[in-house]
Amino acid sequence: MSTIELYDTTLRDGAQTEGISFSVRDKLRVTERLDALGLHAIEGGWPGSNPKDAEFFRQATRLRLRHATLTAFGSTRRPATSAAKDPNLRALLKADTRTITIFGKSWDLHVRDVLKVSLDENLKVIEESVAFLKRHDRRVVYDAEHFFDGYKDNPAYAVKTLQAALRGGADTLVFCDTNGGSLPTEISEIIRASREQADIHVVMGIHTHNDSDLAVANTLAAVQAGACHIQGTINGYGERCGNANLVSIIAILQLKMGIRCLPDEKLKELAEISRFIADLSNMAHRANQPFVGSTAFAHKGGIHVNAVMKNPRTYEHVEPSTVGNHRRILISELSGRSSLVLKAKELALDLSKETPQAKKMLKLLQQLEHRGYHFEAADGSMELLLKRHLKQFKPFFTLESFRVIMEKRGTRLTSEATIKIRVKGVLEQTAAEGDGPVNALDNAIRKALRQFYPKLAEMHLRDFKVRVLDEQAGTAAKVRVLIQSQDANDSWGTIGVSENIIEASWQALADSLEYKLLKDQSSARAVSRRPSAVSQRKRRSR
Amino acid sequence: MSTIELYDTTLRDGAQTEGISFSVRDKLRVTERLDALGLHAIEGGWPGSNPKDAEFFRQATRLRLRHATLTAFGSTRRPATSAAKDPNLRALLKADTRTITIFGKSWDLHVRDVLKVSLDENLKVIEESVAFLKRHDRRVVYDAEHFFDGYKDNPAYAVKTLQAALRGGADTLVFCDTNGGSLPTEISEIIRASREQADIHVVMGIHTHNDSDLAVANTLAAVQAGACHIQGTINGYGERCGNANLVSIIAILQLKMGIRCLPDEKLKELAEISRFIADLSNMAHRANQPFVGSTAFAHKGGIHVNAVMKNPRTYEHVEPSTVGNHRRILISELSGRSSLVLKAKELALDLSKETPQAKKMLKLLQQLEHRGYHFEAADGSMELLLKRHLKQFKPFFTLESFRVIMEKRGTRLTSEATIKIRVKGVLEQTAAEGDGPVNALDNAIRKALRQFYPKLAEMHLRDFKVRVLDEQAGTAAKVRVLIQSQDANDSWGTIGVSENIIEASWQALADSLEYKLLKDQSSARAVSRRPSAVSQRKRRSR
Repeated sequence: MSTIELYDTTLRDGAQTEGISFSVRDKLRVTERLDALGLHAIEGGWPGSNPKDAEFFRQATRLRLRHATLTAFGSTRRPATSAAKDPNLRALLKADTRTITIFGKSWDLHVRDVLKVSLDENLKVIEESVAFLKRHDRRVVYDAEHFFDGYKDNPAYAVKTLQAALRGGADTLVFCDTNGGSLPTEISEIIRASREQADIHVVMGIHTHNDSDLAVANTLAAVQAGACHIQGTINGYGERCGNANLVSIIAILQLKMGIRCLPDEKLKELAEISRFIADLSNMAHRANQPFVGSTAFAHKGGIHVNAVMKNPRTYEHVEPSTVGNHRRILISELSGRSSLVLKAKELALDLSKETPQAKKMLKLLQQLEHRGYHFEAADGSMELLLKRHLKQFKPFFTLESFRVIMEKRGTRLTSEATIKIRVKGVLEQTAAEGDGPVNALDNAIRKALRQFYPKLAEMHLRDFKVRVLDEQAGTAAKVRVLIQSQDANDSWGTIGVSENIIEASWQALADSLEYKLLKDQSSARAVSRRPSAVSQRKRRSR
Repeated sequence: MSTIELYDTTLRDGAQTEGISFSVRDKLRVTERLDALGLHAIEGGWPGSNPKDAEFFRQATRLRLRHATLTAFGSTRRPATSAAKDPNLRALLKADTRTITIFGKSWDLHVRDVLKVSLDENLKVIEESVAFLKRHDRRVVYDAEHFFDGYKDNPAYAVKTLQAALRGGADTLVFCDTNGGSLPTEISEIIRASREQADIHVVMGIHTHNDSDLAVANTLAAVQAGACHIQGTINGYGERCGNANLVSIIAILQLKMGIRCLPDEKLKELAEISRFIADLSNMAHRANQPFVGSTAFAHKGGIHVNAVMKNPRTYEHVEPSTVGNHRRILISELSGRSSLVLKAKELALDLSKETPQAKKMLKLLQQLEHRGYHFEAADGSMELLLKRHLKQFKPFFTLESFRVIMEKRGTRLTSEATIKIRVKGVLEQTAAEGDGPVNALDNAIRKALRQFYPKLAEMHLRDFKVRVLDEQAGTAAKVRVLIQSQDANDSWGTIGVSENIIEASWQALADSLEYKLLKDQSSARAVSRRPSAVSQRKRRSR
């Protein structure tokens, strides 16, 4: 096995995802982050296809990359022109990268129906395009588009296209499962057979799509058949069903197949980088994403929780911290009392297993879940609930009343909230406007609390989700609001449930504010009790 | 290759997903739907672990299943007791199913660290538990938990546990990759070796998890090694990273491996059933889900669209309709114009391809989609938009103003809406209360329109969905409201988008009412023109 080359195409193939649209600045940030991770090649875009990608390559020359080679992507020359005059190939040279990746047709069906040229003409197109770039002293990666489909239909011709690229001087030949329809056994058999038939001695690569739910498996099958250059995207982004997920592939190669592609300490960055790319892409981070999702190491059932406590290997295929993730214990109806006790312990609360108090608490939880509360994604509300139940919580404010008025007159919309609360015996009444009724209420409660708790200015809402629970009840349906908040150090979730969306939002908002105040109070106490914690906290926050 | 048995565990292992909580009624509905699809076995729950599952089995005896066997799930007996006295095994018998699935320990680590009994005692536990259920005339499926991890650590012992289950009389042995950590090559090698070493002549099964992004591939590897009983869940629901996705597996077996497991016409229900289970599970349907997701066959203009138009095989690994899905041409590209024209034609509107009107309409659509509108699920709003644009629509009412007031005082909540509208020149002003502000507004507009359009009483809202679009904008985020309405003959979707949830709901509500009025008007006209339509309509509504 030669060294593995990790080739990222998040910025090119990943950007084809419905909903993703990177700015040039986004692309520069992604490039720097992927380089810091230690990936070996980053495909930055297709300069011949759109001006944004051309602009990216102009600006990218200023980046100082330490590990990665930046690569421009494009197609072979158009049939009717010469390589030297082809605008697409010229744009590729202009991108000024050491490595260039071009794709050509391997499938006779495409040559006839899409390119509409003779099979021989296509071979010439491939060879000349590669040779042209080689003459300009580039390393050339040749992507054999639709290779597996082509091989299945006409193996002899598919092999000829590889030979044409080799004659042109290609440094790497990449087998592409462009439509994502192949099975792992087909992938390895076809690569092995083609290598022999085309007499390949250069580096072989693999590029797969997830249309059959097999992109990662197909990549592994290719590696087992001798491919060393791996193309994929972070989080498997890509059009239709996505590309091969590099995050999973890196973790498997390194942790399960003993193929080292990154230093171990870099592997620990996978979870963070996965979330970073999701954020920049404006995509929700998939909770159940293998290795790095928030539920990837979450344990729910009573039995599982018990066993994991005894020995993590019992229900965890890898140690979560090796990929920068962590274990989570979920509270829900299926979990036994022991996980509740465990959760309480995590919060340094006393709720030992046998007490009637624990039983009562469990019953309350079940009732709340039955009403639509869901504490798995609302750790903040969960902690408040436990502490309220154990009488270890003194509210920071109490609501007397609020009123929200929303008016539409012609096309003019206004939303106003008035609120009356009591803080430390003092009555405070105020009002605020907002973009919609919930925002108005949010503004009003923050305004009312500002003078009492100035530290609330540190926190902000990162995420606001609304889910209709019994959709069939129409506009009278119950809704669940989940809010994710954060400050400089932490992030926490809170929840509200009601037939009234404003009330549900209020519950989640109020919990979010109380949690922040509680957290600051506890850490202030901890600091005053254990002076050593100060320096620790400071060190962490740097 | 023997016949494949599709064994669904959405209701048991799938219900472990963070965020999923089925009611007994949900479970009954899922069971009926999976049976109608033609699955062979449905694992309904774990009656010994919680009262809801026991209740489900009581009520499920009333279901008339045509294809599927209902199965109860549980563990082998506890070490300290006898099988006959074990409460868990007794609960399994009480569930009164023909088939029972029990899991036992294959991994010596688990026997020592979790069960805390001797390796020999565990073999006795397995054999006696299976034998006990066999004596009660059940078909017994034995799930060998952690089989692959166990085999890797101590192959001889793992094989002995299978032999114990065989001595007990197990009808099916299922190899479980409980932690989801195995690779496809390991799966097939270990199954082949174990079959020989344990001399297995009963049906072999496979149960995989997706922790390594390989659940589907691992299932296929097992099938290739001789497994015929396949456990999985719809959409791959399940704890941590999920179980093997039965939807993908069925499609691959049938369309790519030539293994028939469902009638072809049933295969066409996959997309619908996938969305149905997502809805009931209160999970967003994953857009990029292989085979059945909304982007699984979406093409983003340019080269791909042209090629797909020439020959769908060029960029589609299977024909979308074989799994009940359809091709989507994303409207953000030039090719969108032809699909817009197509849609207009469907509505018998004239919007021929070359007109500037079509161009203008396309531009408007693009702007609306950019602002978060999504007409795929809002056919009613789409039709109104087209007709408004073509000046073929006269509004049935116009809004002058509305005001919604929501108040909370202590625990008391009130919601009131006032509304002023103009209908046929007449000004109508009224007010109503409701369960929350949107319901109050809904009640008020219906009250205002009642005297003018009594037929509105025929329609009701069937579905009300709220989705926060830019979750990171917190309480000021834009929300999309989708309403599904129905009357005796039809069902239609409408949409609204705004930073203000009441305004977004208003847009969708108003469209829903206008669509009903428009529809009744058109059909009344059609009837007066073509008297024969009356009998047709009546025939349909019976």
